[in-house]
Amino acid sequence: MSAFNEYSSYEKLVKLAEKPFDLSKNGALTPKRLSEFQAESLNLKLFYGTERINEKVLDSLYELAQEAKAPEKMFAMQNGETINKIEGFESENRMVLHTAMRDFFDRQAEGEQARQASALAYAEMEKLKAFLDRIENEAFTDLIQIGIGGSELGPKAAFLSLEAFAKPGKRVHFISNVDPDDAHNVIRKVNLSKTLVVIVSKSGTTLETLTNEELIRKKFQEEGLSPQNHFIAVTGKGSPMDNPEKYRKSFYIWDYVGGRYSVTSMVGCVMLAFALGMEKLLEFLRGANSMDKVALEKDPRKNLPLLSALLGIWNNNFLGYPTDAVIPYSQAMSRFSAHLQQCDMESNGKRIDKQGKAVDFQTGPIIWGEVGTNGQHSFYQLIHQGTKVVPVEFIGFKECQFSDDTLYNGTTSQQKLLSNLFAQSIGLATGQKSDNPNKEFPGNRPNRLLLAKKCDPYTMGAILSYFENKVAFQGFIWDINSFDQEGVQLGKVLANKIIDQFEMESKGEEYEKAFPLGSFFIDQLKDL
Amino acid sequence: MSAFNEYSSYEKLVKLAEKPFDLSKNGALTPKRLSEFQAESLNLKLFYGTERINEKVLDSLYELAQEAKAPEKMFAMQNGETINKIEGFESENRMVLHTAMRDFFDRQAEGEQARQASALAYAEMEKLKAFLDRIENEAFTDLIQIGIGGSELGPKAAFLSLEAFAKPGKRVHFISNVDPDDAHNVIRKVNLSKTLVVIVSKSGTTLETLTNEELIRKKFQEEGLSPQNHFIAVTGKGSPMDNPEKYRKSFYIWDYVGGRYSVTSMVGCVMLAFALGMEKLLEFLRGANSMDKVALEKDPRKNLPLLSALLGIWNNNFLGYPTDAVIPYSQAMSRFSAHLQQCDMESNGKRIDKQGKAVDFQTGPIIWGEVGTNGQHSFYQLIHQGTKVVPVEFIGFKECQFSDDTLYNGTTSQQKLLSNLFAQSIGLATGQKSDNPNKEFPGNRPNRLLLAKKCDPYTMGAILSYFENKVAFQGFIWDINSFDQEGVQLGKVLANKIIDQFEMESKGEEYEKAFPLGSFFIDQLKDL
Repeated sequence: MSAFNEYSSYEKLVKLAEKPFDLSKNGALTPKRLSEFQAESLNLKLFYGTERINEKVLDSLYELAQEAKAPEKMFAMQNGETINKIEGFESENRMVLHTAMRDFFDRQAEGEQARQASALAYAEMEKLKAFLDRIENEAFTDLIQIGIGGSELGPKAAFLSLEAFAKPGKRVHFISNVDPDDAHNVIRKVNLSKTLVVIVSKSGTTLETLTNEELIRKKFQEEGLSPQNHFIAVTGKGSPMDNPEKYRKSFYIWDYVGGRYSVTSMVGCVMLAFALGMEKLLEFLRGANSMDKVALEKDPRKNLPLLSALLGIWNNNFLGYPTDAVIPYSQAMSRFSAHLQQCDMESNGKRIDKQGKAVDFQTGPIIWGEVGTNGQHSFYQLIHQGTKVVPVEFIGFKECQFSDDTLYNGTTSQQKLLSNLFAQSIGLATGQKSDNPNKEFPGNRPNRLLLAKKCDPYTMGAILSYFENKVAFQGFIWDINSFDQEGVQLGKVLANKIIDQFEMESKGEEYEKAFPLGSFFIDQLKDL
Repeated sequence: MSAFNEYSSYEKLVKLAEKPFDLSKNGALTPKRLSEFQAESLNLKLFYGTERINEKVLDSLYELAQEAKAPEKMFAMQNGETINKIEGFESENRMVLHTAMRDFFDRQAEGEQARQASALAYAEMEKLKAFLDRIENEAFTDLIQIGIGGSELGPKAAFLSLEAFAKPGKRVHFISNVDPDDAHNVIRKVNLSKTLVVIVSKSGTTLETLTNEELIRKKFQEEGLSPQNHFIAVTGKGSPMDNPEKYRKSFYIWDYVGGRYSVTSMVGCVMLAFALGMEKLLEFLRGANSMDKVALEKDPRKNLPLLSALLGIWNNNFLGYPTDAVIPYSQAMSRFSAHLQQCDMESNGKRIDKQGKAVDFQTGPIIWGEVGTNGQHSFYQLIHQGTKVVPVEFIGFKECQFSDDTLYNGTTSQQKLLSNLFAQSIGLATGQKSDNPNKEFPGNRPNRLLLAKKCDPYTMGAILSYFENKVAFQGFIWDINSFDQEGVQLGKVLANKIIDQFEMESKGEEYEKAFPLGSFFIDQLKDL
């Protein structure tokens, strides 16, 4: 099989990128163009007429997807093939089955492994329902989730997105950072006797999480409460945390669900079910599942995640733009870009292909972003007039969540929000001429817009899956392994060396020799 | 005067960048190197031995600063010269005197304009003190700050950084987004009868802010409370908001303080004084002022903001890295990167020089980041092993804020946090060889570390000013105007067109013709 930059479509795209569609030309961006370059599925509309593409570019991108066998690889993933591996080298050698965590609805995947995985996941859902029924009369008001990385970012982004739908009096908090100030800030806000604590670690050995668990356990003990009545584990079966003496209940996750893809597993579900109830949780899962099926759609014009993946590759590999800003015009999605930062960058921030060969093309982009309209008053100056071009993925909703809107000067806040969103999508593309060079906008800043009715559980599930599958598609096309994360190991190893030195130092032992670069920094603390 | 890329130092740096210092070579990074490449001021230590520099690079960077007259321009700025302008074109034509907002301590700037500005700022401080004394017995518990962009990002970042020092029972909330869900989420958390509301808009005309003000005013009226007893304005003298009939008190800001530089003006001070008290606020201002004086230091090796600016330019313009991740290892600084995103990108995301000529070199970087250790479990995969190199600015503290740390496995959480910080700085630089290509780390990922004792008011003030002055120095060296923001205008103009269309539509008026691209999107909402 050829490498990404050996496909015949690659050559075509390189040529096409020499003169990409000029959105800034007078009259180039029209309603007709916007209407032609749009796709729709599950009542989500994707507008991409504001990208620097034309039909020829699209055709070559579709060809690229075919040459790279992207649709087949998506099918293989969802059906339980062992795709998390590097040929010929020690690697994780695992299936990738986060999609099975929500495959309880129509048209289930037929692969045997996938069916088993979704049966196991469904059993956890039933356990969860029974557990929540059982604790109903204990009237827990607060839940603290302790976890880091995928055990925090995705769940927190999902919770904040859907907090508007939370049951009255249910509050959720997250502790992730090993910085003790993080835990302190949460503890002072809750009544521990009415608080559940969910500890999330697949391996049961995550340093930050165990440290914070210990800190919170002490607080319970200081108040005369038994942690065993309050603590729940979400972990791998048989991990050091799978221990009924320490936890009131354990919920399971499996090695075929990566942390950054674990929102719809028990990593997110225990907390979401507590806050929203089982019914709304199921809507959320159904939304994600429905979009997984869209990702299997053969026609790329209807396959929203694939389309988005291809447009991203056009911007990254052919137009040469290294970053990708994700900007939801919805305050509820305030942490969604941070989740995608992990989901995308940890998946595709890779430098070798699946055969272990260093790639000689660009892989995953740098993902960043804040919600609109806030970003407009912050970094949009650079997006409009800087020397660096930033492709933008906008997300918007017709309606707000709380129907608590105000009419001011003839329009609602939601209308103002949408007006700004549409204006930015248009303005970045067209730019503006001026005799004053400081008022000149070069335009041709590519962007696309995902528009939905409302940020509700079903829609959030669909949007989550849209991005998860987009990331997977990009990895398939680059032929990299999007599902391991060897790049985080070196830091852990070095950190442990320095932790050992701190420990030796506090015991008054000699520590200079072990890791001189580490001891240099420890010494620097002394005269601060 | 020459352009940035016409200086003789520019040529030298281009040559030096062909073979930058190889940090990944065995034994290249040593304690000796770390010790040689460090600078210290105000008990802040800057370690930059993990950048790809050597003495020759530094000498040429210092020469660059001289050729660009960076020190003279800093002096001119702090003394009140009209530097916010583009020669020969209509522009803001203003002084840039945010440094005067805190110039009440030693060695005041001598420029007449700067002295006047700091006298006016000091008068506002006295007004603020008197006002807080006067309302003491009304026992306000909560303060809601309504503002967007610089009226939210910087103040919120500063507040969160220093919340640990807040007076017991004082809470602060922010409303910025025109998304009505943002305001709703705050209102349900406060008792309005005990709440002060600070409306911040220099022009008194910011759409998002006025909309949210209206929404909150209604809430007060619904509860039978008089907004006039609760609402405070922070605005320009004579603006539409400078109205004693609507506000209990007005505090002033001036056109020579840009929004993104306004944290130490009344934009941040009213809120910080409410939460922390005047004494701690003054410490914060003293820290910022002290760092302003460091920025005037002639020896670049002792001028921390200049040094950081030069290292950033080396990474951006000579090594070709388009982004800059700012990663504080402190949960309290969770919104600091978002503030810097505005401060830096809105200042230096420019494409013309101060003569109005389009530049043919790179200007401001894309700034992004999250706190550590959280980021390690998120995007560090890409930073370590991706195809894109991301320079990192780390920030760390010897001590945590709440002395509420826990010993786990022989070390405290703060020690674990620091171990991770030091490990990342080292590991990104050195990388790691391996026979397994997936466990190979190329290294040479440049980074620097700013280390301080504790995230306290004085130190936060100093760090804030360190970055503000770094941004200003980079603008001086590129010879761009870092103090206007024409790039946000186009979006506003287009948004207003669409808002008009929404209004006409809701009145049943014909709106198709006015702005067809806008009406296209409005129509798309109908069948969602």
